[in-house]
Parts: sequence; structure tokens; C-alpha cells
Amino acid sequence: MQTPSSTAWILAIGTELTLGQSVDTNSAWLARQLAARGIRTVHHATVADESADILAALALATATTELLLITGGLGPTADDLTRAALAEAAGVDLQLHEPSLAALHEFFRKRGRELPAANRVQAFIPLGGEALPNTCGTAPGIALKLGRTAVYALPGVPSEMRAMFEQSIAPRLHGDGNVIRSRRLNCFGRGEAEIGAAIADLMRRGRNPEVGTTAELGVVGIRVNARAESIAAADTLLDQTEAELRHLLGDVIFGSEVQTLADAVAQLLLDRGDTLAIAESCTGGWLGKELTDIPGSSRWFRGGVVCYANEVKEQLVGVQPETLHAQGAVSAAVAEQLAAGIQTRLGATYGIGITGIAGPGGGSPEKPVGLVFIGLAGPTGCKARELRFGDDTGREVIRLRAVRTALNLLRLELLRANHAAAGS
Amino acid sequence: MQTPSSTAWILAIGTELTLGQSVDTNSAWLARQLAARGIRTVHHATVADESADILAALALATATTELLLITGGLGPTADDLTRAALAEAAGVDLQLHEPSLAALHEFFRKRGRELPAANRVQAFIPLGGEALPNTCGTAPGIALKLGRTAVYALPGVPSEMRAMFEQSIAPRLHGDGNVIRSRRLNCFGRGEAEIGAAIADLMRRGRNPEVGTTAELGVVGIRVNARAESIAAADTLLDQTEAELRHLLGDVIFGSEVQTLADAVAQLLLDRGDTLAIAESCTGGWLGKELTDIPGSSRWFRGGVVCYANEVKEQLVGVQPETLHAQGAVSAAVAEQLAAGIQTRLGATYGIGITGIAGPGGGSPEKPVGLVFIGLAGPTGCKARELRFGDDTGREVIRLRAVRTALNLLRLELLRANHAAAGS
Repeated sequence: MQTPSSTAWILAIGTELTLGQSVDTNSAWLARQLAARGIRTVHHATVADESADILAALALATATTELLLITGGLGPTADDLTRAALAEAAGVDLQLHEPSLAALHEFFRKRGRELPAANRVQAFIPLGGEALPNTCGTAPGIALKLGRTAVYALPGVPSEMRAMFEQSIAPRLHGDGNVIRSRRLNCFGRGEAEIGAAIADLMRRGRNPEVGTTAELGVVGIRVNARAESIAAADTLLDQTEAELRHLLGDVIFGSEVQTLADAVAQLLLDRGDTLAIAESCTGGWLGKELTDIPGSSRWFRGGVVCYANEVKEQLVGVQPETLHAQGAVSAAVAEQLAAGIQTRLGATYGIGITGIAGPGGGSPEKPVGLVFIGLAGPTGCKARELRFGDDTGREVIRLRAVRTALNLLRLELLRANHAAAGS
Repeated sequence: MQTPSSTAWILAIGTELTLGQSVDTNSAWLARQLAARGIRTVHHATVADESADILAALALATATTELLLITGGLGPTADDLTRAALAEAAGVDLQLHEPSLAALHEFFRKRGRELPAANRVQAFIPLGGEALPNTCGTAPGIALKLGRTAVYALPGVPSEMRAMFEQSIAPRLHGDGNVIRSRRLNCFGRGEAEIGAAIADLMRRGRNPEVGTTAELGVVGIRVNARAESIAAADTLLDQTEAELRHLLGDVIFGSEVQTLADAVAQLLLDRGDTLAIAESCTGGWLGKELTDIPGSSRWFRGGVVCYANEVKEQLVGVQPETLHAQGAVSAAVAEQLAAGIQTRLGATYGIGITGIAGPGGGSPEKPVGLVFIGLAGPTGCKARELRFGDDTGREVIRLRAVRTALNLLRLELLRANHAAAGS
């Protein structure tokens, strides 16, 4: 069975999925595989381990699409109904497939066991269908034509599903001759609406590459999907659009694909041979955690202090008691002293100080929950930035945005330093 | 709009989902929320940011189900089409909803900004629909009747979606008479198989309540689902099973529902009037982050030091240079000095010190990646524990297990102190 198709549906079967007890990662993985082959997945459906629901989904999909990938329901227990549903939809019986039975015997023999009686059912395939070998589990897959739709049923276990897709299905798939290639650029410092307005021309509907945005707590992702006759041609389109985006957005773009703000800062520090020390009050270690998530961070991260209590700010970072008394712990002056103090004490090129009110308690009319000061000390001096994240976003969001904003302030400062060095 | 229903559909909208660039976690979360209210989700669908696809999915869902939850497509950019699709499906126009516009102005005002023009579109609601307030983002949700189907459209950003569901949708949902109530108990310190063996009798298939386990990096969750005619009857079943589980597992259970090890430690410290200070090397601030995730942590958390570099261990925590030289930074002696040093310097009841090799580099045959020492200093002295998390589990896992193990050691020490006080 060879399958030329430009669009596809994916159907996931399992009550643990419809009830939300497991998150389906198979469908996204399959969709990425199809996209890489020029096939656009236009619909994912998920139904429970119920014959009627599976049959309804099969009827719907086969009325609409020429390619349907199914995951799940091929196990050996009573709630595994995909085999029977496929046979019923095709109007045929299930038939014992001897090579699959032999493979099942072999699978258990290699593990020093007899084939359990319950597993025999996995060797039954709808008449007219084809068994797809399972090289790392027990259930063979099934390839079957339902009307004009090519249907491939795969196991739900991700490792088995992936191996079977690559070995038995990928070689049969032919898109419409086109490939889809994707790229993601990550932005910080401007809102999604602002970025959308700045790149509106590139986001026009129907354009190729298509450009879309997503936002998550200050980070705006720009996703570019290019369709072309070859990988090289698609990548050229991506390169052109990326260049336009970078021209329009400049240093608002901090990275691509899965790169984080901490990754961007780490690379800049490493390239410059600079080091960093931090003093965190309201973020309580989160900034340090983000920085030390990165392997090899000891090359540029000196360390830090988590200074919730005022005495700790004084004792370990050298914040002046008079400043704390006169301006309060949440103030620009304290943020600056935290940044400069930790920079000096740990002998780092840069120091970051964060102090704020993450809530839910501790706010006042003058200093509401969500007020955060970030101090940044570097070779050219020290300054503090006042931020207001709102008193209605919750402690976690305020803390995460404070961490991200601090990383972005340092990133922009390092870019300025690079620029100054290049210009001098 | 009140919504009596026993089954539901969930529709996720976003090209990043159909192409597999993001994994949809919203649908599973919503399905769990519905199940907890006796509503069984029978179908999840995912479609791209394309009007025709959204309209087709709406037609399909509204022909089949009386309750439809939608996520995504409410953002401010050109690829956000849910509002317009709902209006088209209902055969009505979009209309400016003044209170939503006022809320948008207020959202940006609190952040010291003007409302960007592009965000105005988010205040438009299909005529006859109802705007659902968004308390932590910009896009209001939409409640709308399409034929006999109650439709609720929520933002795709998980934090906004969850808050809106809880505030505006959950109170309107009514299931079928039977109630499913769930409870989760959280364990640490024994493996999933060991715990499964200890509670095997309660895990028998077909029992009500049904009991299942899940494991995630050392934390074993025990999920209990009880079905009964009333909430009170289901809760009585849950109470009985919880009592049996607690009898069988004792202090392996550290909390319930979303309680973390840090929550358990926080409660114990608060109850005792004790305080904590920490010194982290390989975990780099993660322990501090977990502790300060908890609102009000300043009442019992004194602060800490992130001491990657040896000089920082000496300078800010008082670790002896001779010990670092003779035993190395990753050693029981240094862990003890970190714990006792930070306890003394910050005047806390307890001190925790963590030092280890998180990898991927830095390992040796004697001190492999995954070797971690945790020091714990308290009123009755100081001791260190050696842990080996394996060199094949990855940096993130090693660091997270170190954080969790440190919290659990302190938790057990606090329980011992309570016990000693009660017995004396």
C-alpha cells in the first residue's frame, strides 16, 4: 500500500486520554513526522476505548481524509478494541496472521517465557489488511484501506509507535511533492500584539511561508512554516523570512527553537569571558536555578545569595541598613545595592539584584503586589529598573516574569557592550 | 447559562497543535476537571487556525454533544479566529463588549502601559454570547449557545485557561447524578513497585474506590477515584480508603493533592516556629525556588547561598579551604560544613547544604556524575547523607532528585523532633 496524500488525520484511542489521565504526545510526534514529509495534519481526534466511539471516528475520518494514522487499542486486554473496530468498519472478519503469531512466540522466547494466552489475540488482523512488524513490543500494527482512505494503526506505547512508523510507514508516505519545514524564533520585551503589528505583512493569511505567533508569560514565539518542492527550497524561504523578521524586530529576538533567555545570556557571557553573580529576594533562587539548568554554567556563573530576610541582605550582600529603613526592602536603591554588592563580593563582571512583592500578601497602595525592582551592575555602572506585573497575575507568574525580565536586561546590556566594543 | 450534561467534547484550536509543534496539555486538564464533576469527555478534537476547519469542527461537535469546551484562538493577532468562527456558526455579528474593553484598559494601566490598538479586537464577543472575565491575561472567554450545545471558549494559555475554567465555567456544570470524587496522596522515600506491593489489596481491579499509582522522579502519587450517588457518600468512601492507605504507608505519605515536599516542610517549620537556611552548589537555587514558591515563606525561610565556586563556599558560608582541598567540593565533610555554616551565619534552626556532580561533565570513577551529598544541621547536630542518582539520568533529574531528597530528609527530621517532643 503506497500512500500519496497532502493532508492527514490522526486518531488516538484510549479512555486514559479522553479522561485526561494521560497526555497524548503521540499525535504531536506523528504530526511532526508527517509535516517533515510534506503532509499537513489537519485534524486530531481522541476517543475512548468504546467500539461505538471508535467506529464513529473512523466513519468521520474516512469520509474526509485520504490518510489516517491511529494510535492505541492494540494491546492484549479486553479494553483494546482497535483491531475489531477496523474489521467491522471494513466489513470483514479478523483472521489469525501466522507470521505475527510466530513473532509473538519469538518475542517471549527471547525473554525466557512462553507466549501468554492473552497475547494471542494480537496476531489477528482484519482480512485484507496487512500486519506491520513490531520490533520492540508485542502488538503488530495494521495497514488497511477503508474506502479511499489509507489507514495505519500503531501501538499506543510511544517507543513502539515511533519505531513502527519509521520502519513500516514512513517509506510509504508521499506528500504532494512538497515538504514543510519549520523554524521558531523567540522574542522578549514586546507584547504579542505589538510584535504581531510589527510583522503584520509577514502574517498575511495565505502567504508562504506562513507566520504565526504564540505567547507565554512574556516570551512570544514566532513560528514560520515554509512549503516548497525540496528541503533546500523550503529552507531558503525560511532564511528569507527569518532575515525579514530579524530586520523588523532586531534584538527583541533572543533565540530560536528551544533556546531560553538563560541560554542567550550564557552564550553572551561565555563569548565575552564575563561572569555573573546574583542576589535574589522575591524570586528566591529561581534565577539561579534557570542559570544552573545550563550544563557548564560554572564557567560563567559565580554564585548568588537568596536574601529573603533583611539581615541576610545586609550580612551577605552588604545592603545598607539605612537604605532598607528609609526606602524599604522593595526599592530601586536596594535593588542597586543588591546588584552592586553581590558583584563586588563575588568578584563578577555583572551583578543582578531582584527585590519585589510576589504576593499574595505584603502589598500596599504605594507598593502593590507585582511591584519588582531589578538592579543590574556592570563595568559601566549600576542601575535599577522598576516593573509592575499587576496584582492579579499570581505569585508564580510574577516571579517567573521577574526572572525573565532580569535575564533580558542583562542580555540587552551584554549586546550593548558587544556593540560598543565593535564600534570603538 | 447553566449546563446539565453527562458527556462533553473538547476542541483545541491551533496550527502549532495540528502540526505537532506544541503538545496540547489543556484538553487533558479540562477532561480531568470534567470527570471530577461527573462529566465524561468522549471526544477531543484538534484543528488548525483555519476558519473552515474550525467551522467544520463546530458543526460536528454541536451535532453530537450538549457541552463543548474550546481552547485557543482568542489572541490578538490575525491567526486568532475563534471569535469570528463562533459568530459565523451562530449566524451573528461580533459586537464590542464595553466591560471587556474596560478590563483590557485596566489590565494595561496596571502595568503602566496604554492598551495597544491590536488588543482591542479581544473585546469583541458574538452577539448573544457572554464574555467570561480573564483574571490573568487579556482575552476574555466566550459562552454561547449553538443549537442545543453549550459552548465555552477559553484562552489557550494554560494559566489563563485554568483560572477562567475554575472561576466562570465550573460553577455552571452539572453531571448526571453519579458523582466521581478523587483524592491523591503523595509519597516519597519508597519506589512505586514497593508501594504497589504494600497496598496491593486496595489496588484490586473492579474495587470502588479504585486505587492507582503514578511515579514521577521519586514522588509516587496514589490516586483514589470513588463513585457514588452523592458527594458525601463518595467522600466517605475516600476517607475510608485514605485511612487504610495511611495505616499501611505511614510517614512515606507526605501530603495530598497538589501538596509538595516543600509544602510539607513549610507546614512543619511553621507549626514548630523553626527557621531554615540553605547553601546550594549543584542545585544552584532550585531548592530556594521550591521553598519560596510558597506564599509567606519569609516567616520560616531565612535565605541561602548559591555557591558554585569554591571561593563562594569559603567566603559566604565559611567552608574550610583545607576541607575543600583534602576531600574535594563534593564530599560529606563539605556538605556538613555548608549546612552548619549557613545555619550559623543566618541564625536558623536548621541548615541544609547540597553539593554534587549534576553533569554532564565533571565526573570521575571515584566521584561519578550523579553523586550528591546532602548535609543537614539542626539543634541536635549535623550529619551528611551520600546519594547516587546514576550517571545516565541527566542533569535535570539529578538536580530535582537532590532537591526532593533534601526536603524529605528535613521533613523526616522535623517529624522526629515532633515525636521526641510528644514523647518527652
